[in-house]
Amino acid sequence: MAASLAAMTALMAPRSVAIVGATERAGAASSFVMRNLMAQNFAGHILPVNPKGGTIFGHPAAPSLGALDELPDVVVIGIAADRVNAALREAAEAGIKAAVVLASGFAELDEEGRSRQAELVAIAARHGMAVCGPNCLGLFNLHSGAALYSSTLSRNMKRGPLALVSHSGASAIALGNTGRVGLSHIVSSGNSATTDLPDYIGWLAQDDATRVIGIVVEAIRDPQAFATAMDAVHAAGKTVIALRAGRSAGGQRATAAHTGALAGSNDAYASFFRRTGVVEVSDMDGFVETATLFCGIRAGPPCKGVAVIGVSGGGVAHVADMADEAGLDLPAFAPKTVATLKTLLPPFASPQNPLDTTGVVFADASIYSRVLETVAADPSVGVIVAAQDAPPGLDEATSAEYVGIAGAVARFAGTSGVPTIFMSNLSAGHHPAVRAAAEGAIVLNGTRAGLNAVRALLDPPAPRSPPPTRQTVAEPRWTALLADGKRLTERDAKAFCAANGMAVTREVLATTVDAAAEAARSIGFPIAMKIESPDLPHKTEAGGVRLGIGSELGTRAAFEEIMSNARAFAPEAKLHGVLVQEMVSGGIEVLLGLARHEPFGVGMVVGVGGVLVELVADAAFELLPVDRTLALDMIARTKLGPLLAGYRGAPKADVNALAGIMAALSDLASAYRDRIEAIDLNPVAVLPSGKGVRILDALVIPRV
Amino acid sequence: MAASLAAMTALMAPRSVAIVGATERAGAASSFVMRNLMAQNFAGHILPVNPKGGTIFGHPAAPSLGALDELPDVVVIGIAADRVNAALREAAEAGIKAAVVLASGFAELDEEGRSRQAELVAIAARHGMAVCGPNCLGLFNLHSGAALYSSTLSRNMKRGPLALVSHSGASAIALGNTGRVGLSHIVSSGNSATTDLPDYIGWLAQDDATRVIGIVVEAIRDPQAFATAMDAVHAAGKTVIALRAGRSAGGQRATAAHTGALAGSNDAYASFFRRTGVVEVSDMDGFVETATLFCGIRAGPPCKGVAVIGVSGGGVAHVADMADEAGLDLPAFAPKTVATLKTLLPPFASPQNPLDTTGVVFADASIYSRVLETVAADPSVGVIVAAQDAPPGLDEATSAEYVGIAGAVARFAGTSGVPTIFMSNLSAGHHPAVRAAAEGAIVLNGTRAGLNAVRALLDPPAPRSPPPTRQTVAEPRWTALLADGKRLTERDAKAFCAANGMAVTREVLATTVDAAAEAARSIGFPIAMKIESPDLPHKTEAGGVRLGIGSELGTRAAFEEIMSNARAFAPEAKLHGVLVQEMVSGGIEVLLGLARHEPFGVGMVVGVGGVLVELVADAAFELLPVDRTLALDMIARTKLGPLLAGYRGAPKADVNALAGIMAALSDLASAYRDRIEAIDLNPVAVLPSGKGVRILDALVIPRV
Repeated sequence: MAASLAAMTALMAPRSVAIVGATERAGAASSFVMRNLMAQNFAGHILPVNPKGGTIFGHPAAPSLGALDELPDVVVIGIAADRVNAALREAAEAGIKAAVVLASGFAELDEEGRSRQAELVAIAARHGMAVCGPNCLGLFNLHSGAALYSSTLSRNMKRGPLALVSHSGASAIALGNTGRVGLSHIVSSGNSATTDLPDYIGWLAQDDATRVIGIVVEAIRDPQAFATAMDAVHAAGKTVIALRAGRSAGGQRATAAHTGALAGSNDAYASFFRRTGVVEVSDMDGFVETATLFCGIRAGPPCKGVAVIGVSGGGVAHVADMADEAGLDLPAFAPKTVATLKTLLPPFASPQNPLDTTGVVFADASIYSRVLETVAADPSVGVIVAAQDAPPGLDEATSAEYVGIAGAVARFAGTSGVPTIFMSNLSAGHHPAVRAAAEGAIVLNGTRAGLNAVRALLDPPAPRSPPPTRQTVAEPRWTALLADGKRLTERDAKAFCAANGMAVTREVLATTVDAAAEAARSIGFPIAMKIESPDLPHKTEAGGVRLGIGSELGTRAAFEEIMSNARAFAPEAKLHGVLVQEMVSGGIEVLLGLARHEPFGVGMVVGVGGVLVELVADAAFELLPVDRTLALDMIARTKLGPLLAGYRGAPKADVNALAGIMAALSDLASAYRDRIEAIDLNPVAVLPSGKGVRILDALVIPRV
Repeated sequence: MAASLAAMTALMAPRSVAIVGATERAGAASSFVMRNLMAQNFAGHILPVNPKGGTIFGHPAAPSLGALDELPDVVVIGIAADRVNAALREAAEAGIKAAVVLASGFAELDEEGRSRQAELVAIAARHGMAVCGPNCLGLFNLHSGAALYSSTLSRNMKRGPLALVSHSGASAIALGNTGRVGLSHIVSSGNSATTDLPDYIGWLAQDDATRVIGIVVEAIRDPQAFATAMDAVHAAGKTVIALRAGRSAGGQRATAAHTGALAGSNDAYASFFRRTGVVEVSDMDGFVETATLFCGIRAGPPCKGVAVIGVSGGGVAHVADMADEAGLDLPAFAPKTVATLKTLLPPFASPQNPLDTTGVVFADASIYSRVLETVAADPSVGVIVAAQDAPPGLDEATSAEYVGIAGAVARFAGTSGVPTIFMSNLSAGHHPAVRAAAEGAIVLNGTRAGLNAVRALLDPPAPRSPPPTRQTVAEPRWTALLADGKRLTERDAKAFCAANGMAVTREVLATTVDAAAEAARSIGFPIAMKIESPDLPHKTEAGGVRLGIGSELGTRAAFEEIMSNARAFAPEAKLHGVLVQEMVSGGIEVLLGLARHEPFGVGMVVGVGGVLVELVADAAFELLPVDRTLALDMIARTKLGPLLAGYRGAPKADVNALAGIMAALSDLASAYRDRIEAIDLNPVAVLPSGKGVRILDALVIPRV
């Protein structure tokens, strides 16, 4: 359910907060909330509710929500799970638009908890409430001090442009307290029963205090709502950075136990994030460095070249190694740049990218400044990475050597049109004195995470609008066949494909030996013959396949053999006859398929097919819809690229026809979406350019 | 040149140090050395040398080395490059066994520098001197205070079991000042002109103060000496951890400019490190965490299973994700473990691996202790990773929540037989108060680097003794042919292989059309025919190949065609005739080859061959020698594993015969080592089990 903007504002930026179950008892969740509100100087009204009345932390308590003098924006429900829904209903009926439910004992626990959570969702839906939780730490607006948070908040937290929304409470604490980027909001959304990532992201997209939104994701539950929220993010020129927990089998086990949410597959998430323009990171360090970079950047890089500068050959060589692994381009400097660097640096320095300034810059940091100016003026340089270790373990005297360099970088970064980053190779970062001198520059820690962040800045995922859906309409014939629930026979599956604009092998169903011979003659030798039966999905096992038959005599013999093999294999099976099929030669075999990846719907796989499938083990995946442009991009990402382009002297294959069949398959899936579980077209023969493609075998599994 | 143990001891643990070019002038290298010696409380004699005499930093200066009252163990030469060799000669003639040469202006600079360095090497060799440098920061023995180091040393450096030897000065400073592991020695070896990694490693292997040796490597220059030093390391039960700078093309450029050393290929280094039992890490964080783990470990893990414990489902899910990527095994807990955990943890906790204890441990850390005991008692658990973030950005109050957990881990780690690691997911590590409470446990920072270190502990590279070399003796016939320097014809190349125990296609060289027909009949159809000429290495281009010829008529026609094509293609080419060859069918095509990878000698590649080479792009590499056991291991590392094992219903292929031919090729290379640049056997047909292999085409390139 999407909460209204007003309800979300009541939750995220409340001016008054009621606390149900308010108490001064130390361990109680509600007492953490009240102490946090006071410690963070919340400027709004703090309204404790307790049947016993009295004052709590100096605030007069009302005996019930109904007895409050004013209508609070939000109510924090700090009581046990079994009493939560009664309190939520009371709040809703009083007209309160938002709530934070801290207690655990909901869907993450057991069957009773699941029905308790369902009731909570129903109450919220009925009244249009925004509800954070249950089973959460709550949320904290750093700008207003609205600390609806049931764990002690550090007083060291800095305000800034990063909002953090986390399915994991521990990750919210860890990522919220790095002391690096300043924060606008922290949300620990717990079970996210009714208000989830799309609601939070949508609200933050319009929040002036937020520029970057970092999310820790256990599961995306409503892809469409998430995509809509991402549209708002992009319209506002903001960035979302995502870290997934539960990517591996082991990880999924732990997450499932935690929130009751099943994580989807890595491929489906990656495709969904690419499509919606989310920057995905792979670990917590990646999250922190990427957030730091995107929060710090003032203007986009003018181009994609990266210049690396350091004071040591070994040091810049290491950065170059890692840049290579991160997929960054370190272009050669222009002749003019080289010439100027020669005048600045000693004769034994090599004026190249990566650039070792040599130790001369220690004695005279102004040389470093002039090097930065020179490199930034190079037309191929879009980002400068000034890689300089000065580890925290140094003492004051030895760290002082690096202060000049840090200062030069900071002064330059403040004015340059080329984003300039001060980076430590060690993730432990810089000595505090050096860090202080670099204030004003973007400071990143750790070569790997730092350079991956630079890569995300230079190659951000481009949000892709889904192509306009073609008006493919489901036909009753196929809908009826699919509704049967049985996997289609090869003939039906191919006819289904053919009816939807895909080229299949020419084939005839023969029910007698004479008809088979006649069919073979009309198709032309050589031919293939396959048993056609709804009850024999594994035709080869049943002795039901003969390939490369070259004569009428062979055709007649094969018909008898196939039928008798099938009868012997499964006496009860209904045999429709034998499919007589053209043999297609000279094509490159491709695997093309659809599979369901909830909650994202259906995704498409394309890759090298035939006997090579497992050996090459290389395929591209995208969620539907796939149009011709995306199809060509998918093909290019796999080894089909070189294979179809005329591999080892072979003729170029009909890539466009393959892209066409992929788009047609996507349309078919959209017309029959709810009816299809999976489709395997393996192999599809891609013939030489201009000759099209041919589906050689097809498997369609209806959704039951 | 290998320096003697005595000379190395004089360098690494001197009792007296002469400083040539001693001065109090602030910027001078020698003044840094003297100030470092005094600041580090060097207990030995400090003996400045200056033609002007007087006192320098309170020490009376001798006018020359000859005028010193005592013979120093080591001399630090702190004067300009052009005067270094005269001083070194004077020192050598005075009987001094070791020197540190700080100046740059040697091989890293220009031609003059290279001859200057050659002279330095000659002097050292003649007198058996150990020389650190030139172009180096020098070295520092933390236990004796012998700080022969030309850059200010931090007073925060801790003594401990890690020795650091670095080709890169900047890396020595960065890695020496992390404030993490304590150090025994730091060596910045600069150009390593005469004393290099093998000398340092060999000495450190016998140094009681050193347990782990970390090296930053730009190039291995003497693999044999390095391997010998590694033997000493393993005999002493110590570990070497290596970080390479200059892995990528860009990285190599920067390194080459820096030291004049060309880095070898990644594959060759990886093979060499595996073979010599060196733990290779990929970045500076990996270096620090791996060194921390190996320095901290007291006894090896009892088995390879890893248990992950945390206080949050999302947190342990993230660690499980990363453990999966690091190749770690998180076994399911035994039923007894699960039963005990159920009694310790609340009902909503899931007693599984990875284990989320839930927040109950905050209130009562003794639960955490009992969880650790329970998990350690599980027979499948060899290492425990207690993953707990408590970032440095927290304040005192909020960090205090984690102190109990850190203390529980530290107390348990101190007594447990199962290595127990306190790990922060964020590379920034723990809040100082939490870090202090964890004292006694091994503390690792950053999930990725931390878990990779655990992987290195559980699966250390096993040093492999080279298999006993077979007594393959070079035969004069082949030596003469190779000495010619031209690439061998296919026939000669195959005969060379056949003479060395490798099976090739049956083939006959025909010089007339009748002879070709006769050869074809005797071999049996179908056959292949190929032009045989020393001047036509690219036979196909010259129209010199016909495959699958099925008749005598075809053979005759092909002979005429091939000869006339070749004559037309290269009228000057010497044509030996046409090679008539059996066609081998039913085999799986493998690529097998040798190539030179200096300085390591020759390496072998094996992988999927034939038309699939580029598509599958998957091969294993090892330096020679390769015996049958290593050959089988290499095959298993590639897609040949499944392909040869009977892929998709194909018969099992003769893997043992392939391993046999690999061992034979290795022997051949060892007999003719200096004569061979490269060999390509592509394809080699691996026939069904028991039927052996057949080399279908061969290319041998002699070394010139």
